[in-house]
Amino acid sequence: MPEQANPAENVTSPEYLGKYQALVHDALRDCLASPDTPLGTMLRYHMGFESPEGEPQESVAGKRLRPALCLYVCEAVGGAVEDALPAAAALELIHNFSLIHDDIQDQDLERRGRATVWSIWGKSSGIVAGNALRTVADSTLYLLRQSDAPPAAALEVVQTLTARCLELVEGQRMDLNFESRLDVGPDEYLDMVSRKTGALVEAAMHMGALLGGATAAQVERLARCGRLLGLTFQARDDVLGIWGDPALMGKATGADIRRRKKSLPVLFGFSGTTGAGRERLEQLYRADDEMDDEDVAAVMGILDAANAEESAQSVAEDKGTLAMDEARAAGIPEEAVQELHDLAHFFAHRAF
Amino acid sequence: MPEQANPAENVTSPEYLGKYQALVHDALRDCLASPDTPLGTMLRYHMGFESPEGEPQESVAGKRLRPALCLYVCEAVGGAVEDALPAAAALELIHNFSLIHDDIQDQDLERRGRATVWSIWGKSSGIVAGNALRTVADSTLYLLRQSDAPPAAALEVVQTLTARCLELVEGQRMDLNFESRLDVGPDEYLDMVSRKTGALVEAAMHMGALLGGATAAQVERLARCGRLLGLTFQARDDVLGIWGDPALMGKATGADIRRRKKSLPVLFGFSGTTGAGRERLEQLYRADDEMDDEDVAAVMGILDAANAEESAQSVAEDKGTLAMDEARAAGIPEEAVQELHDLAHFFAHRAF
Repeated sequence: MPEQANPAENVTSPEYLGKYQALVHDALRDCLASPDTPLGTMLRYHMGFESPEGEPQESVAGKRLRPALCLYVCEAVGGAVEDALPAAAALELIHNFSLIHDDIQDQDLERRGRATVWSIWGKSSGIVAGNALRTVADSTLYLLRQSDAPPAAALEVVQTLTARCLELVEGQRMDLNFESRLDVGPDEYLDMVSRKTGALVEAAMHMGALLGGATAAQVERLARCGRLLGLTFQARDDVLGIWGDPALMGKATGADIRRRKKSLPVLFGFSGTTGAGRERLEQLYRADDEMDDEDVAAVMGILDAANAEESAQSVAEDKGTLAMDEARAAGIPEEAVQELHDLAHFFAHRAF
Repeated sequence: MPEQANPAENVTSPEYLGKYQALVHDALRDCLASPDTPLGTMLRYHMGFESPEGEPQESVAGKRLRPALCLYVCEAVGGAVEDALPAAAALELIHNFSLIHDDIQDQDLERRGRATVWSIWGKSSGIVAGNALRTVADSTLYLLRQSDAPPAAALEVVQTLTARCLELVEGQRMDLNFESRLDVGPDEYLDMVSRKTGALVEAAMHMGALLGGATAAQVERLARCGRLLGLTFQARDDVLGIWGDPALMGKATGADIRRRKKSLPVLFGFSGTTGAGRERLEQLYRADDEMDDEDVAAVMGILDAANAEESAQSVAEDKGTLAMDEARAAGIPEEAVQELHDLAHFFAHRAF
């Protein structure tokens, strides 16, 4: 990973992505303008466009990193950004479908500082809302038909997103399965993350490259770059979930430990601890309720002794380096290589 | 609706659909042969191909009516049945995705005499399994690319299925919303059914006609015929849910009353009852727990007085007649008109 200082570490994403994020925001608003039904309100509420009562609202609504990256890559390989807009919007909708269902599975009451859909409308409605968003995503993708993309390319984009979406769902299933296990190793965890997070970032760059008219070899390199960036992002996310600045993160230090989330550093803690420490760790992670402060401190101590933060941070940086290798080999303009480099650095070093 | 006797009323579907059902069965097996993961087992279990432990099994796995109808229509308009096979399989997978999620929403423990997916693996896994089946459906649809269908036609098929799937999800949402209301009228209910059941039957005939090479006018007629057949099917289903033969149905008489399901006859009961009877009915449907035998008998009495069975059965037959008008106007071979006629009759008069 790059060693130079990057002033963007305390922002939510690199500045050059801003114009793409704005484009996606408007496209998403358009996609979700109808239906004017309670279901429509649930979807617009989740995306930050409406209050639960259906009043217009502008809420913080996620970083829109995946779709911005899709548009960015399309332009970087010489395409017109509007050709990739339906694919970018669809991608963000798919991501949000998975978030609505994730919140039900994890029983999370809040997301981005607002009540989760299921916590307002109930689990059954939450399931339906997620399904609806997934279906709106498909409808959005068909706008590609009205674009200049040839039908065969449009169909390949649809197929790519579907394949990655299947991976995402498989990743969700693996994640659930891990909850009841104490023997998950870091590699197995990264395999899950590759699906649950990496697949959609891969799809972002894959679709952007396809729709921007990249060669097959470029598409392949950029797709791989995307998956590795997804892993970079998630590994850093896992570090921040334990050692992130509480003021910046909006949650207490060790939040992920308190919830017994078996994130990457915890798995390094398990694999790097033997004897009494290991027994204590297993005992702490076997219970069902939230950990108290004393337990959290005990886990933090064990993780520190096992160098778990360094190991997890190394994964973030190593995957970022591999991502850059792919970007550099893709034969895209040098300026784009540098900007992707900045993105990888940001993913691996961001403060929240 | 046709008045002549039909010996097929006690079978699960008209005999001429059998060969299409068999084709679909094999195609579904192929679609779900992988992945060899716990998620794969959940999907194959739901479809009747495996035990919960992943052992091969042949279980009664639904009538496969929608996909059989899709293949049938394709052939009836002069197409080759294999061209519609991916669409037919995708349709059945979408239907089953909705069943897996429905079972969670309704907290149903059994389907087709077997434990429901969520009751074995939990609700979170059930949500994921439903999502996975929906995604496999999309992948299956892309097999159309490898068929002789031109990309534009394939994309139109994908678009049709997506639009009907969005309707299905909207129907699920309306259905949920109805649960907490006592003022749903028969028309509003039928609007919900048109989405939740009609949309996919419309998709079956729409896609079959498209892939069989029908004219735009034929496609439109046959699509409408499908939606009306869906309404016919569901109205009869609602009648059987109360007055069906317990031995044939595999559940007690009045099963839907016991569970306080506000099906079509119950809504006719509400709209056709005033004064003390109406008050009693509202009181009976306001509680949360299952009704006891005495309550069920009280509801049955009120429904009988309001001619609710006749009203609901009339809806089934009227929609069947309208479906036949569309089929006749579609300009398909006379033999096909007759066979669809038999199907409409079967839908409206079947015994289980």
